[in-house]
Formats: sequence, structure tokens, C-alpha cells
Amino acid sequence: MGAARFLRGLLPLLDPSKLTVIVNTTDDETFFGLHVSPDLDTVTYTLAGAAHRKQGWGLDGDSFRCLEALGRFYDENWFQLGDRDLATHIFRTDALRRGRRLSQVTAEIARRFDVAVRILPMSDDPVRTRISVEGAGTLDFQDYLVRRRARGRVRAIRLAGLAKARPAPGVLSALRRSDAIIIPPSNPFVSILPIVKLRGVRAAIRQSGARIAAVSPLIGGAPVKGPLDRMLRGTGHRVSSTGVAELYRGLASVFVLDRTDGDLAPQIERLGMRPVVTDTLMKSPARARKLASRVLAELAL
Amino acid sequence: MGAARFLRGLLPLLDPSKLTVIVNTTDDETFFGLHVSPDLDTVTYTLAGAAHRKQGWGLDGDSFRCLEALGRFYDENWFQLGDRDLATHIFRTDALRRGRRLSQVTAEIARRFDVAVRILPMSDDPVRTRISVEGAGTLDFQDYLVRRRARGRVRAIRLAGLAKARPAPGVLSALRRSDAIIIPPSNPFVSILPIVKLRGVRAAIRQSGARIAAVSPLIGGAPVKGPLDRMLRGTGHRVSSTGVAELYRGLASVFVLDRTDGDLAPQIERLGMRPVVTDTLMKSPARARKLASRVLAELAL
Repeated sequence: MGAARFLRGLLPLLDPSKLTVIVNTTDDETFFGLHVSPDLDTVTYTLAGAAHRKQGWGLDGDSFRCLEALGRFYDENWFQLGDRDLATHIFRTDALRRGRRLSQVTAEIARRFDVAVRILPMSDDPVRTRISVEGAGTLDFQDYLVRRRARGRVRAIRLAGLAKARPAPGVLSALRRSDAIIIPPSNPFVSILPIVKLRGVRAAIRQSGARIAAVSPLIGGAPVKGPLDRMLRGTGHRVSSTGVAELYRGLASVFVLDRTDGDLAPQIERLGMRPVVTDTLMKSPARARKLASRVLAELAL
Repeated sequence: MGAARFLRGLLPLLDPSKLTVIVNTTDDETFFGLHVSPDLDTVTYTLAGAAHRKQGWGLDGDSFRCLEALGRFYDENWFQLGDRDLATHIFRTDALRRGRRLSQVTAEIARRFDVAVRILPMSDDPVRTRISVEGAGTLDFQDYLVRRRARGRVRAIRLAGLAKARPAPGVLSALRRSDAIIIPPSNPFVSILPIVKLRGVRAAIRQSGARIAAVSPLIGGAPVKGPLDRMLRGTGHRVSSTGVAELYRGLASVFVLDRTDGDLAPQIERLGMRPVVTDTLMKSPARARKLASRVLAELAL
């Protein structure tokens, strides 16, 4: 998850109490009756320094004994949930069933992990990414990404529940009060645009007058990980950082792209954004910090 | 758990398809939002040969990583739930939330553990043992037994929900069709009488004409484990096998008691039961089998 790596790079550069992270929830899923919020957890675990060092998910040093035992009852235990990770899902599910909202539970989980950064789910209401794949019908995101390993030709990406969903408490005010907004190197379709498309979000961003930088998730025209290329192609966009920039048109004023895609800078400029060409591959925490530092500098922070 | 040890001794002596085990559910409890049925699980794990060899609960060789992690969120994680054991509770909770009944879920869990013996919860309706303890108020059973280690003077034992509860599907018909019924060496107040007191159970037993043997859970006037002595004393009963036999009066026709309590045989006879004096301490599977074999013989099975 590029956003998590970027966040890890950003953290040492900022006063954590000044930072709010708004997190996508459209790939939340129910497994074994437990409410799993993969992006919220990755962000929380990352900020807690507890995330797995290599994988883009889960806790460092986790074991999988419960999941193994769940295999006795469920035919489908393809989603990797570690024993200690499960505690988070059990707690979240329990709290939601007791009537607490996802944003409250998220804050509580962050507190229990001693995370000082404010973490907000985009919405307390369910919005779900649904992917139409040629020959496979319409799939939930985790089903598409994890179980089917993103195989098949993407025909459409839909956000079910978007029209009815309100931003979670704190989202709009955090945006309005912000001096700067960073769109990290993530999948625009399933991680960034669901937030941007929520009712009131664009208006709040406009009101803030914040400087906004986006970092392209593509390097050399390809995603570091994940099916973004297939999603861009399948929805009729260019498979390049220009294609991504087009999705952020009118939103970001600075667009950071990798050196390998430096030749696209004039196209970015024509979209009304200032291109910043640098190394965006976050091979190490030091490299992530360097990238984050560059983005902050471009935002005059 | 004396009943589980006894069951392990009984199993090799019978055609498992001929056996039905009716299990107490009044010490069921919700932990972390998960429905835990300690007695059902102990019986299932025992019959599956998967129970912990020494403890009276849990799975053999289980680990406790999830529980440890739950300690981050919950102040109270005193009830030991292993990682593999948790899979059972997660599945049960998920299935109950989907509208399945406890008896259905119990059968499914048994099937998944390849248990051929029929296991029935006493009821699909919630009945809960509540213990009044001097100076501590009224406690849920696990709170009393596990968290407070059964400390304090018992003043009363109540079965909340009993009046409204119906026996689970299959309970009455299994009793009616039975040739013999064994009341294993268990706590009468919290394991046996909750079943017996359910609406229709005594009538079904009478209709069956079954021979009925009870095994005293006391040895030398004391429980092998657990607070039965305190419960007998606190509710005004004799703390002896005679006190237990009095609770089974009009129910059992054979009463098995330990050699160390052999002098009570005349008292048992006066209660209208045939006393059988033998070794009841199940120190090993062989000893459990010997005891079970003796009980079967006394029932002419």
C-alpha cells in the first residue's frame, strides 16, 4: 500500500497532532461475521509502527492459527487475518453491534495503539467498491483483488451506497481547516476518488483554499503493486500518470510523478497542474521520507 | 469437567450413533461479542478427541495470541479463549446472527469435528445460571467461577429465563425414546438440574420408562474440582453424596457413589435409589472407562 509507505515517510517530518488521515472504507468487508476495514487497519498499524514490514497488510509477526481453524467451518478463508489482527476485527465488530459508529471505533482503536495522528474513516455509512469483470460478473473488491488476484478484464468500477453516504464526523471540518492536502500514491478508483466523491468533500476542499499535491501511484507507466493499470484501461483512461492526473484535474495543483515518467510533465502542465518530477519508488523508509519531504517542500510546508 | 471425562470413558463402550448427549447451556456467555458455549464445546471437543488433555476446557495444543491482543481493547480478558477455540465461537456467533438456532449450529460444529454422537443443547432459548454471593451481589456463572474463582459464600442459585425456555428440538423425543439415561458426575445445580427443570423434560423421562443412573460428583464428601460444596451448603443441602442424591430423588433409580462415601449407601437406599459403591475418581481414561462400564452394567446395558 503506497499510502502507508508514504505515511511512514511523512510521520517523522510533522507534528503528528497536526495531521489528519482520511481513509477509504470502500474495501471494507465482512469475513466470518467480522467487520474488517483493511485500509483503516493498515493506516493505524502503520502509524503505530506495528504494521508488517513487507506485506501491505496485517501486523508484524502475526500468526494464523485461528484462521487455520476457521477453515474447518468456512470453505472460504482466503483473506489472511492474523491472530492478533483478528482482535481488532472482533473489537470493531463488537463495538459496532453495540451501536458505536465506525469513526468512534476507529478513534478508539487508534487510541489503544497509542497513535497520536487523527484517523478518520471517510464515512460511517457503508460505501462499497464493486468491480465488474468480464466473464465474472460484479465482484466485491476483496473478492476481486485477493481471492481472484485481480484476474480478468475490468469493465466498470462502481461505488455502491455513495449517493446516500455522508462523510464521517470530522471529515469536512478537517478538510475546511486544512492548509495543505496530500493525495498519496494510491489507487485513485478504489482509495482516493471514493473520498473525493462523497457529498460535500469537494466543496470543503475548495473552501479550505488548501494547497493540494497528488503523488502518482504509477512508475514507468505501471503500478508498483495492484491492478490500477487494468482499472485505468478498463474504464477508458490512459494507462499512465497522465491518466491518473486527469482523474485529479481541478483537485490537485501539484502533481508528483516519477523520473521514469518525466516526459509526461508537459501533459501534466496542460491539465493545469504543476508537475514535480522526482524518485517516487519508496524502496526503504529513508526513500519514503525523502519523497514525503519533497512533497512538503513543494507545498511550502 | 467430570461429565467430559465420563463421556470419554463411555465412548469406546457404545455405538456412538446410539448415544445422545444433552448439554447444559446455562453457563453460556458473551465474550468480546462472541457467543461462547463452554459445556457444548467441552463435550464436542472431548468427543472429537480434540479436547485439552489436562484442563477441563479448550482445545489441545491451543495458543492464546488473539486473546493476548484482545487485552489491548478489553480490560477483562480473564476467560481463556485459545486461537483455535475462538474459531468455534466466531463461527457460532456468525451462524446465530444469520438466524440459525443454537441446536443447528451445535450439530454443524459437531459435524465439522467429525463427531458421530448426537449433541443437543438443552435449549435454543437463553437460560442463564445466576449466583448470588454474599457481598458480591448476583453474578453470571463464568464471572463467579472463573473470574472470582468461586470465592465467597453462595446464597442462592437462580436460572434466569428458565420459565420461558423450551427444550431444543430433539431433546424431548430423544428422552422419550431412550432405554437408559445417565446423569454423569457433574454439578447438579449448574449442569444437570437446568436440563431436568426445563418444561416437559421430567414428563418425557417418565414416558420413556428408561432406567436412570446418576453418578455422584463428590468423592469423600468433596468435589474433585469446582464449588459444588459451597453451592450445596449455601442452598441448605447436605454437603455429601446424600445431598446430591436428594436432588435426584424421583429421577434416578441407581445412584453411583465413591467407595470413600460407601457408608452413605443406606441413606441413598432410603431415598428410593439403589446405591452402587465403586471407584469414581477418573484419574485416567482407563479408570473412566471402568466407571462407565460399571454404570452400563448396572443399567443392564
